[in-house]
Amino acid sequence: MAVKKELNIGIVGYGFMGRTHSNAFLQAPRFFPLAYRPVLKSVCARNADRARGFAENWGYESIETDWKALIDRKDIDLIDIASPNDTHAEIAIAAAKAGKMVLCEKPLGRTVDEARAMVDAVGSAGVPNLVWYNYRRVPAMTLLKQLLDEGRFGRIFHYRSQFLQDWTISQDLPQGGEGLWRLDSAIAGSGVTGDLLAHNIDMAQWLNGPIVEVTAVTETFIKERKHNLTGRVEPVRIDDASAFLCRFANGSLAVFEATRYARGHKALFTVEINGEKASASWDLHDLHRLNYFDHRDEGQLRGWKSVHVTDGDHPYMKHWWVPGLQIGYEHTFIHQAADFILALGEGRAAAPTFRDGLATDRVTEAVLKSAKTGQWEKVAAA
Amino acid sequence: MAVKKELNIGIVGYGFMGRTHSNAFLQAPRFFPLAYRPVLKSVCARNADRARGFAENWGYESIETDWKALIDRKDIDLIDIASPNDTHAEIAIAAAKAGKMVLCEKPLGRTVDEARAMVDAVGSAGVPNLVWYNYRRVPAMTLLKQLLDEGRFGRIFHYRSQFLQDWTISQDLPQGGEGLWRLDSAIAGSGVTGDLLAHNIDMAQWLNGPIVEVTAVTETFIKERKHNLTGRVEPVRIDDASAFLCRFANGSLAVFEATRYARGHKALFTVEINGEKASASWDLHDLHRLNYFDHRDEGQLRGWKSVHVTDGDHPYMKHWWVPGLQIGYEHTFIHQAADFILALGEGRAAAPTFRDGLATDRVTEAVLKSAKTGQWEKVAAA
Amino acid sequence: MAVKKELNIGIVGYGFMGRTHSNAFLQAPRFFPLAYRPVLKSVCARNADRARGFAENWGYESIETDWKALIDRKDIDLIDIASPNDTHAEIAIAAAKAGKMVLCEKPLGRTVDEARAMVDAVGSAGVPNLVWYNYRRVPAMTLLKQLLDEGRFGRIFHYRSQFLQDWTISQDLPQGGEGLWRLDSAIAGSGVTGDLLAHNIDMAQWLNGPIVEVTAVTETFIKERKHNLTGRVEPVRIDDASAFLCRFANGSLAVFEATRYARGHKALFTVEINGEKASASWDLHDLHRLNYFDHRDEGQLRGWKSVHVTDGDHPYMKHWWVPGLQIGYEHTFIHQAADFILALGEGRAAAPTFRDGLATDRVTEAVLKSAKTGQWEKVAAA
Amino acid sequence: MAVKKELNIGIVGYGFMGRTHSNAFLQAPRFFPLAYRPVLKSVCARNADRARGFAENWGYESIETDWKALIDRKDIDLIDIASPNDTHAEIAIAAAKAGKMVLCEKPLGRTVDEARAMVDAVGSAGVPNLVWYNYRRVPAMTLLKQLLDEGRFGRIFHYRSQFLQDWTISQDLPQGGEGLWRLDSAIAGSGVTGDLLAHNIDMAQWLNGPIVEVTAVTETFIKERKHNLTGRVEPVRIDDASAFLCRFANGSLAVFEATRYARGHKALFTVEINGEKASASWDLHDLHRLNYFDHRDEGQLRGWKSVHVTDGDHPYMKHWWVPGLQIGYEHTFIHQAADFILALGEGRAAAPTFRDGLATDRVTEAVLKSAKTGQWEKVAAA
Repeated sequence: MAVKKELNIGIVGYGFMGRTHSNAFLQAPRFFPLAYRPVLKSVCARNADRARGFAENWGYESIETDWKALIDRKDIDLIDIASPNDTHAEIAIAAAKAGKMVLCEKPLGRTVDEARAMVDAVGSAGVPNLVWYNYRRVPAMTLLKQLLDEGRFGRIFHYRSQFLQDWTISQDLPQGGEGLWRLDSAIAGSGVTGDLLAHNIDMAQWLNGPIVEVTAVTETFIKERKHNLTGRVEPVRIDDASAFLCRFANGSLAVFEATRYARGHKALFTVEINGEKASASWDLHDLHRLNYFDHRDEGQLRGWKSVHVTDGDHPYMKHWWVPGLQIGYEHTFIHQAADFILALGEGRAAAPTFRDGLATDRVTEAVLKSAKTGQWEKVAAA
Repeated sequence: MAVKKELNIGIVGYGFMGRTHSNAFLQAPRFFPLAYRPVLKSVCARNADRARGFAENWGYESIETDWKALIDRKDIDLIDIASPNDTHAEIAIAAAKAGKMVLCEKPLGRTVDEARAMVDAVGSAGVPNLVWYNYRRVPAMTLLKQLLDEGRFGRIFHYRSQFLQDWTISQDLPQGGEGLWRLDSAIAGSGVTGDLLAHNIDMAQWLNGPIVEVTAVTETFIKERKHNLTGRVEPVRIDDASAFLCRFANGSLAVFEATRYARGHKALFTVEINGEKASASWDLHDLHRLNYFDHRDEGQLRGWKSVHVTDGDHPYMKHWWVPGLQIGYEHTFIHQAADFILALGEGRAAAPTFRDGLATDRVTEAVLKSAKTGQWEKVAAA
Repeated sequence: MAVKKELNIGIVGYGFMGRTHSNAFLQAPRFFPLAYRPVLKSVCARNADRARGFAENWGYESIETDWKALIDRKDIDLIDIASPNDTHAEIAIAAAKAGKMVLCEKPLGRTVDEARAMVDAVGSAGVPNLVWYNYRRVPAMTLLKQLLDEGRFGRIFHYRSQFLQDWTISQDLPQGGEGLWRLDSAIAGSGVTGDLLAHNIDMAQWLNGPIVEVTAVTETFIKERKHNLTGRVEPVRIDDASAFLCRFANGSLAVFEATRYARGHKALFTVEINGEKASASWDLHDLHRLNYFDHRDEGQLRGWKSVHVTDGDHPYMKHWWVPGLQIGYEHTFIHQAADFILALGEGRAAAPTFRDGLATDRVTEAVLKSAKTGQWEKVAAA
Repeated sequence: MAVKKELNIGIVGYGFMGRTHSNAFLQAPRFFPLAYRPVLKSVCARNADRARGFAENWGYESIETDWKALIDRKDIDLIDIASPNDTHAEIAIAAAKAGKMVLCEKPLGRTVDEARAMVDAVGSAGVPNLVWYNYRRVPAMTLLKQLLDEGRFGRIFHYRSQFLQDWTISQDLPQGGEGLWRLDSAIAGSGVTGDLLAHNIDMAQWLNGPIVEVTAVTETFIKERKHNLTGRVEPVRIDDASAFLCRFANGSLAVFEATRYARGHKALFTVEINGEKASASWDLHDLHRLNYFDHRDEGQLRGWKSVHVTDGDHPYMKHWWVPGLQIGYEHTFIHQAADFILALGEGRAAAPTFRDGLATDRVTEAVLKSAKTGQWEKVAAA
């Protein structure tokens, strides 16, 4: 029995994303044949008690309370950043300089400047890097990417994508503090633009190529909320909703929209693409289904097909159960961890890299700018 | 401009079915090229006031209050029976003897004996005849029939069909009387077996061939109801629910179920057929859609396709609007009227004929018998 | 039996809309209790043969080949304009001046100037008028309007609406000429903006109030097509696709999109509205269903409800069949005809009036302007 | 940090169910607060290499090749039987006699006699026991059970349940041998009746109480197949399809159907229940959704609600991610493992126990008997 090489992981953050990443590292090697075995060496959090609780639950061997100490450890190969957005750039740059591989939650930076510095850092250090745009690894989306790459859609005319939530509608919800930093612009950078639209944009550019120009609108529906840290009612500085029209380099038109005020939708990330010969659509509420329309089908029998993406010949699925048995949200992270480690074993980069993360930030920045200027804004060239 | 031949119609009954038939006669020639122009000569009902109101609304030229008088009229070519089940046999037989064409609401008879006598009568008289099993003319169902006839499904393994309603759940609903004769076994013959399962069975034998044996169960959930005609609480003698398992001559197995106690379903007539190479399903709540699965599709892209049956190359649809614009329930009667008149012009019989109606009654009788004996019962041979 | 007053109708145009209107006039009095009986007096078309064929099919008593002659007729009370967009203003204004009631297919005018002149004409003449924005009379949409008027949704945050078709994707499709005038900008005025978005906008302003400003994009994917009238390949001057972001007067944000290049969608008119307390959505491909989410439902049992809008207590439905049995596209016109005649009997105006049609044209004009300027454009005040 | 008590597990079998169980033991303590920590002590399989590979993948500390040796080990608290049906009784009885807790894959026995002996064995030994009818722990099904227990449905009229697959349609599929023992009646006991209907029946009796009598039909569509172990074409002795009608003790009627010949369905386990006041339905292809109809809703707004069972107040879901993010098939086993261990900590029995497994076997035996006799058969009393 061959002894596998170890991939020693130090994670920063113990929140929602800390859980999804830890689960991914634990599960990936049980379902995918990997050359490296992830070892959960240490979790870092300012609060030692919480770090200890998290370590115990997930099996981390140790804790740190200062991310710099984590980076200094010789027994760690990879730094995984699962902490709020305002920490991404600083930690990633330091980790890269220390020669660690760097995985980072999305969005890469709060700004293009931050993201560019991160790209430069991993580039100079020559270290493997990845942004956790996990939805590329929904099997239905990976399948869609394959179908597009095979040229089945012909010329693309339209793309549309939404991310609809409803969890901030109540006026009583405070901003900032524990579990609510996504409402605090200083930490989050922006509201739904960076939090939700970033997913839409990463997916869109992966599937449909570069976005070249945008016109956008943002809105903050509830203007003031109590701030959990200060205890005072303060202006809300994030965007509650954000929508934009755009043109892709391939000539297609698109409509994007994200909000946390769409009553009845919890995490409705939708994608639709219309080509000359075929169309497809998908949404996160039934992530195991891909809807596909093929104009080449016999006329009388044309229709939208609901493909239950659970067969052995669907991306990733032979590693799971049997046809008809669906997987869920967490598996997208497991797939991403598996792909990263597979690529590592083969000396390849696994996408999305920091460079891909920067490409998304360029669009979100153009969106936020257009929302202010009321003009069409070009997306900065790579 | 060619003058069309007239097809002079006398209808018996002014209820729900009187309306659907009258509408069909009026609309058919506006949307389909027909050699005959239906003329609404007379409506017959015992209550003269109601007959007059109905005639005025639908444009009947005259009224009758005795169906024998209607049959005696020389200016009438066709008798359409839209009155309750207990009147079907007597009127149809007399009309046939008088040399009239006969159209009859379903079920043909309350019993096989009644139905057989009706078949014999139209046979002896040599008059065109039709039973209003309207759902064969849902375009999605006509399309399914075509697909089956083309052999696309291969060997058939399974058939299943339901008709689920919920309108008799209340204990307060009386039985019998105005608008409620379907609860009165003397008039209706049976409950859901003749009223609803008859539709399922007609469709099934049309699509999948003869049913050879059945085992059934029926139930009357509410044992007593006030009778509207007597004013007394009386035992309910109809079946509230009826289900059966059966074997078709082609070797396939089937499950049928009808009830008026399926809370939440108004008129959920469903059909599903599973063949070696393909499957299809449909339901009346979205009657303009056919769901189709083809095993010959490319593996990764197999799935259930929802065909929006509104294109010009779909059955009947070129006569209506443009693709994507759905038709509704009443159109099934219009199609049936149009097909009858088209066949008439060509000297053909239009299905379902009385003989087809008898074939359905043979199965419903076997179902009701099995529900009593607790045995498998053979369907009487034609 | 009371003799009903007659409403004598002269129609201009014998195309798709000529059929839907004629059917509506014939069917409305059979299903709705109306004080006036529509009488199809005359159809006007330049081609006498076609006019005669149309008259014969629908039962028009006579034909005209010059709309001015039609308007001059004393025996006609109402002019119904079902001819291409470039004829609307001239005919409507002349008809109004002649004291006729005027019904007009949408869009009202090709421009705001045309529409305003039409509003002025019917205003000066004091004649009843109506624009055929038929989708307001989809029962599901009428129900939605009632729910909104009852205040069930609370503050509105989002509105979104699409109209997706795919019938012009082929390069081989010519522009202009018989059945294709919608591709000819001289006749149609614009492409999908006036043809499709006009429906979205009329519905939106009816449901959610005035739109105040827009930013838009349009695209013509196929730049040249053979022109059926000239026989030459000519530039395509209409918009193939049109999308806009907007703000409503009530503070809600919206996204609109229409196209004829969305492969797989035939007539996918969608509406969604998100309020603080409830949300609803609908689409034309299953027009008999309203999806509704109510935040006041018990937590564990919150979900999107699919309301099958076929019950007797749903708008218009008691006039049709029984619960569970759906109606179709043509019924929206029947309802509109019935409502117009009902209002006439009661001395009221039935919406949408020409004034409502102008309000839609104001938005489409702002959309087309913004698509050119790349700026946000205000919608002109009423 | 409290040291948790260990629960030392020995598993028999390394196939599909070996994987789902092992994953459940590993994942349960990461997501649920459990008093015991499962320790994967040993996996037992006749083939040592396979056992070793399985142990390495899942982290079992050791292997055994004889299940008797496994049972003899003092360091093991619990025997988990994940091997084919023909091994269940012998292993379970021996394990119980040895004082081990016993978990067993479904169906409990191949016959009622086997199952009764197993119940007696765990009863005599007084050891905790469980059958892996995992689908009770689909959150949507657990929620449905709660709704039923709260009395929301009123009197129950109808129950229906299917399990539709299509993986054995090909004539080329051999029977028996590696991965195909489900086609070998000697090992499996029966075909779809024990494999699939057992799930339907366990769920049904849990939700709707005891089944009292049945009438059934079974079919073997492909009569002969090559046997993988003998290399010869042999008669197929299992049932390919099985359907039955039944009465529940509560007076409701039901229809059940399972097959491996329903082209297009991979694992379509469906459940529907119709009560006087409410109805619900569910299927395994979208296991995270519960469809619910409540007659007490306001008339105009009645409809089937699709509840996305992913909120924090839904069963099990607060332990996973955030609202809108679905879980999958494997989680049902994790929930079952967690519930067993929670119950163990509290000195309670977790359902379904062996006694519940026996209750299911009683029904499957009646079904198979009825399919032979052509009679209604009573389910043997407990």
